Amino acid sequence: MIREKKMINFNAGPAALPEEVLQQAAEAVRDYNGTGLSILEIPHRGRLFDAIMEESRHLVKELCGLNEDYEVLWLQGGRLQFAMIPMNFLPPDGTAGYVDSGQWAAEAMDYARHYGKAAALASSREQGYTFFPGLPSALPGDLAYVYLVSNNTIYGTQCRELPAVTAPLVADMSSDILSMRRDYTACSLFYAVAQKNLGTAGVTLVVIRKDMLPRICRTLPPMLDYAAHVRSSAVLNTPPVFAIYTSLLMLRWLKARGIDAVEKENRKKAAMLYEELDRNPLFHPLVAPESRSLMNVVFRAVNADAEKSFTDLCAANGIANIKGHRSAGGFRVSLYNSIPAEAVQELIAVMQETEHKQDHH
Amino acid sequence: MIREKKMINFNAGPAALPEEVLQQAAEAVRDYNGTGLSILEIPHRGRLFDAIMEESRHLVKELCGLNEDYEVLWLQGGRLQFAMIPMNFLPPDGTAGYVDSGQWAAEAMDYARHYGKAAALASSREQGYTFFPGLPSALPGDLAYVYLVSNNTIYGTQCRELPAVTAPLVADMSSDILSMRRDYTACSLFYAVAQKNLGTAGVTLVVIRKDMLPRICRTLPPMLDYAAHVRSSAVLNTPPVFAIYTSLLMLRWLKARGIDAVEKENRKKAAMLYEELDRNPLFHPLVAPESRSLMNVVFRAVNADAEKSFTDLCAANGIANIKGHRSAGGFRVSLYNSIPAEAVQELIAVMQETEHKQDHH
Repeated sequence: MIREKKMINFNAGPAALPEEVLQQAAEAVRDYNGTGLSILEIPHRGRLFDAIMEESRHLVKELCGLNEDYEVLWLQGGRLQFAMIPMNFLPPDGTAGYVDSGQWAAEAMDYARHYGKAAALASSREQGYTFFPGLPSALPGDLAYVYLVSNNTIYGTQCRELPAVTAPLVADMSSDILSMRRDYTACSLFYAVAQKNLGTAGVTLVVIRKDMLPRICRTLPPMLDYAAHVRSSAVLNTPPVFAIYTSLLMLRWLKARGIDAVEKENRKKAAMLYEELDRNPLFHPLVAPESRSLMNVVFRAVNADAEKSFTDLCAANGIANIKGHRSAGGFRVSLYNSIPAEAVQELIAVMQETEHKQDHH
Repeated sequence: MIREKKMINFNAGPAALPEEVLQQAAEAVRDYNGTGLSILEIPHRGRLFDAIMEESRHLVKELCGLNEDYEVLWLQGGRLQFAMIPMNFLPPDGTAGYVDSGQWAAEAMDYARHYGKAAALASSREQGYTFFPGLPSALPGDLAYVYLVSNNTIYGTQCRELPAVTAPLVADMSSDILSMRRDYTACSLFYAVAQKNLGTAGVTLVVIRKDMLPRICRTLPPMLDYAAHVRSSAVLNTPPVFAIYTSLLMLRWLKARGIDAVEKENRKKAAMLYEELDRNPLFHPLVAPESRSLMNVVFRAVNADAEKSFTDLCAANGIANIKGHRSAGGFRVSLYNSIPAEAVQELIAVMQETEHKQDHH
């Protein structure tokens, strides 16, 4: 153990990282691979960083099952993609279709309306975003793209199967990238902030199919133009070297485990927790079973007394960051790739202890 | 010494950091202040990160001598400011004035032309950017803003005194922020990437005077709107927590030394090196004396033989990253805040050794 006490951290992001990734990242800050330079000091043009970029891009392609039709970029600013996607791909007189599955999807749709028209193809807004809305069988024929958020962090809903659409599919996979097998080739563009399943805050993975580049519909300054980023091999300006390196460490960790094993563990963790929520009379999950996220489990306590008792017991047991999003309330437990099943078992034990304490009231 | 061998790193950015900053940053990756959480894992909404933001913003104001008229933001993407500045402050029918002092100034001017008109108020382009061009005494009266780059990393030129202009002054201070006393209140907006004088790659300091916010001339999506960043207290989306923390460590280091002492050391380092360049017959500086940068010293060897000999001797003595920018050639030695005078003395010793070796040919 390198830390005196180790918290169990269920934060929705920035999320917990595996101990070995933290150790390697800390060592690189001291001395990167015995070079006599810290990872914070290495030039972003030179063989040390080139090797980091090359390996990380290769691993993304390998783990996502992508061929040479795709370009891998590491950019800055997750939510900047909300603007860049319509800037690049939504002409002023065009319409993009959005799946209105939560706050970030709705906000991305608002961003799009600065650049063209955006239509909600499906929505669960009126139902408090408690399920992932399915697309209607018939869509408008001339959509610039269809945009969805594959996992809704705030509401704990997930799109388990990406829909087949004729327009280019654009997916915000920030909170479930590489957490399970997916057909990433269904997407023409997908992106993910790193700080949930893929590293630390400060970098955003953007994967784009090359045939999207000729569709760019505006003359944009380079920093806002996906084609310019591709042309510069994603080093248009000084990239966030340390954040990219931390993502590389996570990619190596994921590769060593294998995505199948990662998915199996993620399914096991979620199943254990949902089972307890369905059983334990003090708690109830908020999401319809078919939409339940493997990544973010959102629930409430049945009353304020149970809520307080559970909160206090978590704190006493070193379990941190289980509060729901400020817009949703209740509890949210994030089960990203780095979270071991043992952590979920400890949480369940605390839920059961809460139940027993309430029984004795 | 925490590193087996310590390189002398004169990189133009990402630049060397003080050993104590690296140690503290590495320790925070292991365990942030004994919390049982890594700095990579702490929530960006919560008291731990709030304290980092508050102290860092306070120190920026204190060290720059700013009052409550200014807002301090930590954003992502240095070069994104090239676009955000005209998007926010250059109306389609307006004109912004740029001081064409180098490649980044010229590129920022190109970005501005996507949004309105941009005029070069002064230029040293025809002279290979070997000096910092002074503004003419009379400027057009209706400029949206005047934009300059206070230090030109590629060419080794610096604007020692910010000009007095009636239009709002906007300054890219990426490579000389907090390296000397300056009247930062001459600026309505200034910004600096962190990876030179202020931390590591992945975050950009943006300081904006509040009276600029009502001048925002477009309806922009929040991520591109300075006012939205200010309203959100610069946490519009998940900020690059680790990069901001590293900047806080640098700000504490700068405060402990004091800006006057930092400036004195920076002047001493630059004077020593320019003196050697003026004396040593094997080298010549490329910049006119009145424009010589205290931060980036750009020079050439007199011939290929001297160039090779000097390059080899630097490598043999653990001196790294002295190659000039790919667009400029020759050598570039960056003397940012973190570089101790002893490192410059070692470099000068190698220059003199090169000279003696050449004498014996």
